[in-house]
Amino acid sequence: MPSLGKNDPFKNSISHVLDIIGEGWSLLIIREAFFGARRFEEFQSRLGIARNILTSRLKKLCHNRILERVPIKEGAKRHEYKLTDKGKELMPVLIALTQWGDKWIFGQNAEPVIFMDREYEEPIAKIRVLSSRGQQLRPRDIQVIPGPGLTPEQKAHIEAMNRELEPEIEE
Amino acid sequence: MPSLGKNDPFKNSISHVLDIIGEGWSLLIIREAFFGARRFEEFQSRLGIARNILTSRLKKLCHNRILERVPIKEGAKRHEYKLTDKGKELMPVLIALTQWGDKWIFGQNAEPVIFMDREYEEPIAKIRVLSSRGQQLRPRDIQVIPGPGLTPEQKAHIEAMNRELEPEIEE
Repeated sequence: MPSLGKNDPFKNSISHVLDIIGEGWSLLIIREAFFGARRFEEFQSRLGIARNILTSRLKKLCHNRILERVPIKEGAKRHEYKLTDKGKELMPVLIALTQWGDKWIFGQNAEPVIFMDREYEEPIAKIRVLSSRGQQLRPRDIQVIPGPGLTPEQKAHIEAMNRELEPEIEE
Repeated sequence: MPSLGKNDPFKNSISHVLDIIGEGWSLLIIREAFFGARRFEEFQSRLGIARNILTSRLKKLCHNRILERVPIKEGAKRHEYKLTDKGKELMPVLIALTQWGDKWIFGQNAEPVIFMDREYEEPIAKIRVLSSRGQQLRPRDIQVIPGPGLTPEQKAHIEAMNRELEPEIEE
């Protein structure tokens, strides 16, 4: 069975994501942007991060189009940083990571922060994996199939993998 | 306003998670475990990873209780690796990351893999952040409040942050 190895597109995708958010501080900067921070000084005072490191991380997040640097007002000289659509759509990742950490690192009744729905002032729901019909899925309920972005070789690899092994994850 | 700085518990949690899954290969090993791999050779041939690196990553994933090493059968000498409950609950993180990468890195109709619901053979739903009442939430709909795991100082920090800034994320 051929290995996807270096050409494993999933690996490339995961590497890219980890390259963007995996570096110390980057995910915290994204978090602060979700919480409303926009200006350099806001990120700086909230995170207590060195200015040169913050500059470098903001630059990289802009380069990767997670944040965009825009004038505070039209024609203003000062700039602020706003989440792009690409950045905003990291919210499920950020919340899934936080909920997992709350449960498995901090434990119940020791969560550092709680995400609340502003309108009803209730904690948000736990993030779940659902079928297109809205049923909750467990790992064993999911199968992976080759997508349109694979080469024929990579397709053959995944098909062989599916023939070879049925998931046997116990509940 | 005091900074959470080094004692930022969210930072510690994110760092811990990134320490576990952020290292090259770790998330791919977890992915293969979700897809049904259990034995050393299975991980090795599917990922095309060097044996010594695989050994080290499996050891660390066991140390962090994402995987557990168990005899193949009762009393058998050979071992296999199974996801623990802690590991299985990383599924929403893995899928949220993949869906984000599909959209923002590969683009529509170039996804490398598709997650299918086994029962109905349909692609799974996009992961969303929902209120406890099932409504989809945007970043601006969410407020963060101090949890029970914070010190009084950290609580004061978040409360000051909430007073100071209301999110202004534009849609």
